Amino acid sequence: MHKINLQQKLSLITDYWNPHIAGELNGQYVKLVKFKGTFTWHHHDNEDELFLVVKGRFRMDYKDEDSAEAAEWIEQGELIVVPRGIEHRPFAPDECEVLLFEPASTLNTGSVENEFTRRELPRI
Amino acid sequence: MHKINLQQKLSLITDYWNPHIAGELNGQYVKLVKFKGTFTWHHHDNEDELFLVVKGRFRMDYKDEDSAEAAEWIEQGELIVVPRGIEHRPFAPDECEVLLFEPASTLNTGSVENEFTRRELPRI
Repeated sequence: MHKINLQQKLSLITDYWNPHIAGELNGQYVKLVKFKGTFTWHHHDNEDELFLVVKGRFRMDYKDEDSAEAAEWIEQGELIVVPRGIEHRPFAPDECEVLLFEPASTLNTGSVENEFTRRELPRI
Repeated sequence: MHKINLQQKLSLITDYWNPHIAGELNGQYVKLVKFKGTFTWHHHDNEDELFLVVKGRFRMDYKDEDSAEAAEWIEQGELIVVPRGIEHRPFAPDECEVLLFEPASTLNTGSVENEFTRRELPRI
């Protein structure tokens, strides 16, 4: 049973949009990732996703039930849960450090397959 | 879809060892709790538990596989996962603000029923 220092682990990550597995519990992963720029629109059919900002800020763009675009800025020390089925896209004008909690089965681009897709996640 | 500010939510908590539900995803709860003093020894038969320190520090006492006592200090920005079955007891000499991530079924005192047990958790 070893503790995880978030800043220390995040300092090992040198690329963007590439989630790293930092912990595992109850079939869920704790992932650490750095955001910078604009991700791809996507949704997850079967997984809710939690985003907690460790450092920096990002904007979560999403489409509400009427498919109208909306957005919310998530600042350091804030979290947001994106329910399954909701189309979303993170955007970070500057580097942003994020902790994700989600089922181990979650693919980062959900129902979309493109250059952002990461199937084999590194562990840190 | 509304974001959660951890410090703002934690400022609403006025008692110790009383987890509040701040979010829910994939059958798991995000709970916020303030620690102060010594909790009760307990374990969870079926749930792994994640503790992330938002502010302050606490010591996780636990018994390893040989039932020898061990301890680890968890500081602000650090997290620890306590696997199911492991006997543990948080201790906080000063007030400590903690985020928990665990299955909705998790009882705070696990297999033990005593004055620390909370069955109906408030939502914040």
